[in-house]
Amino acid sequence: MPVQLDLNIIARYAHGCAVLGTGGGGDIRIPLMIAQAALAECGPVAVIRPEELADDALVLPVGGWGAPTVCIEKFDSGDEGRLLCEAAERWFQRPVAALMASEIGGGNGVQLVSWCARLGLPLIDADGMGRAFPEGDMCTMHIAGVSPAPAFFADERGNVMTTHPIDALWHERIARHLVLVSGGVIAGADHPMDAATVRSATIPDTVSLALAIGEALERDGVDGVLAVAGGRRLVTGKVVDVERLTSGGFARGVVTVEGTGVDAERVVSIQVQNENLIASESGRTIACTPDLITIVDAGTGEAISTERIRYGQRVTVLGMPCADVWRTPKGLEIAGPERFGYDGPWVPIEEAGL
Amino acid sequence: MPVQLDLNIIARYAHGCAVLGTGGGGDIRIPLMIAQAALAECGPVAVIRPEELADDALVLPVGGWGAPTVCIEKFDSGDEGRLLCEAAERWFQRPVAALMASEIGGGNGVQLVSWCARLGLPLIDADGMGRAFPEGDMCTMHIAGVSPAPAFFADERGNVMTTHPIDALWHERIARHLVLVSGGVIAGADHPMDAATVRSATIPDTVSLALAIGEALERDGVDGVLAVAGGRRLVTGKVVDVERLTSGGFARGVVTVEGTGVDAERVVSIQVQNENLIASESGRTIACTPDLITIVDAGTGEAISTERIRYGQRVTVLGMPCADVWRTPKGLEIAGPERFGYDGPWVPIEEAGL
Repeated sequence: MPVQLDLNIIARYAHGCAVLGTGGGGDIRIPLMIAQAALAECGPVAVIRPEELADDALVLPVGGWGAPTVCIEKFDSGDEGRLLCEAAERWFQRPVAALMASEIGGGNGVQLVSWCARLGLPLIDADGMGRAFPEGDMCTMHIAGVSPAPAFFADERGNVMTTHPIDALWHERIARHLVLVSGGVIAGADHPMDAATVRSATIPDTVSLALAIGEALERDGVDGVLAVAGGRRLVTGKVVDVERLTSGGFARGVVTVEGTGVDAERVVSIQVQNENLIASESGRTIACTPDLITIVDAGTGEAISTERIRYGQRVTVLGMPCADVWRTPKGLEIAGPERFGYDGPWVPIEEAGL
Repeated sequence: MPVQLDLNIIARYAHGCAVLGTGGGGDIRIPLMIAQAALAECGPVAVIRPEELADDALVLPVGGWGAPTVCIEKFDSGDEGRLLCEAAERWFQRPVAALMASEIGGGNGVQLVSWCARLGLPLIDADGMGRAFPEGDMCTMHIAGVSPAPAFFADERGNVMTTHPIDALWHERIARHLVLVSGGVIAGADHPMDAATVRSATIPDTVSLALAIGEALERDGVDGVLAVAGGRRLVTGKVVDVERLTSGGFARGVVTVEGTGVDAERVVSIQVQNENLIASESGRTIACTPDLITIVDAGTGEAISTERIRYGQRVTVLGMPCADVWRTPKGLEIAGPERFGYDGPWVPIEEAGL
């Protein structure tokens, strides 16, 4: 476990988050620059296990809501973290002890590093997804029965909203409208927990995992990533088609990759809803949510986010196993293929398409 | 000033609110039934002047947001007032001392009587409009520079939202999205104030005014209303056309009245955006917001709300002077004809069309 994130390793960490982002969670470039600026100005961020906090310490899971396609044009003010913490502290009448990524994947694993740095708060070595997912209830806290309420939202203008939805469905609905009114993205915090609950309701050590993936990527490229994350190459080739639609606060689309070299003659298509959800070949599913499907640059191994995929890119598509919690019946109900309207049943990446 | 609202006078009060509603503020029928049930169960509601409260007592202006056309199909749960007060008390960490109508007009002047009854809270003899207006910043608190934030919203399902918008424009935008996610209407509280501020930032004695109008209406019909409220008959005739559109959370339209009797050959059309905003005849404005334009039943004198206007009704259209505060430059900027996209300048009802 890293004891802190600092300027030396933040970029590696961010590239690891991008791999775990499965195309989503927001592009890492702008959050990385914002985090670097905050680390330079305020010093390193301590990374801690929830066991290091008192049982009743308040932990706030945070992240960005909305369409990643908007994130690369509409930047954060940098003050959202403070506003979210202030709103939570007003509600609970006690201080926030640490921040945690709601989802470790993509920019959402990186954005909060700047908030931790500026607020002097530690970062919990865990998250609620172990990857990225498009909807707010697709997290381990939901599986564990933790209420999403109260939830807190802040936009880059300084508007702050606290919501107390009656259930996860209304949490998603209300949050999605706040995304819309804010212009496509908004910072949010939900499923606030005490540290005792964090220990059982999240996926541990995912900050460490992201950093390990980033280090392996820098050292050994795609081979390094697979050595740390598990899984396999699904195809290497060229992006020959990208269908793209930003609707209802989501980035949707289909990416088609035509194999080259040993994969010549193969065509793999990837269904996207913020994240890469299903990879299929000749109508056969070869990898499927909740397992991770990440498109990386065939040369550098760096993950390419949904909104940066474009025609002609030389890519490798990776399929990697998700955290065990997603492979339980409840996990598959929340984040399996049927939840997104695709045919099931889910087949683990270790067996799919073989 | 009435010392309390009870079952004997609540219907008269509600009919007075309907006259002040200028077609909007929501239909009074359902709120009246809900208020009657609450008064029967919990006893009368004390009506007090803000002077009767300690300077720092917390007063919560409340009302419904959204399209009145939806209010007559989607009912309140009755619990919204409690949820709004709880949210405000959590924010301010002190008890709500009294409720005030954000707008006295229509159902919004009546709805909160049931909340006062159930919560044992007094009702302030004042409001923020002296009538009804379609948007949240069209209130005297806004003129007085009182912040709309924090604002509180609750729907009939139990979803509760607290917002802290940066200004009145964002308050309106965020509230309008909460109206939409809630299905067209939502209960809200904004511009929370201490009692000292209420004394200078509201229109006093409007609960008394509504009751006086309702009593005069019962006694002397339209003549009684005009004797209390001032103003004059604009036309008496038949509704010959109603254009209606519910869009963006508003009820919009045009009502056309063809004169009968002494008004034969006259045609008056009324532009509506939740409220009746402009009355014109042969292209000439004969009454105009912020003055009050209310369509009443030609027989009984009872006000007809926007969503109940229909072809064939025999009606009298009344034009009545607004509160003085609306006739100031700031008042006209906020609620004059130009604000709604109509040609100005505003001409007082005492002179318009004569």
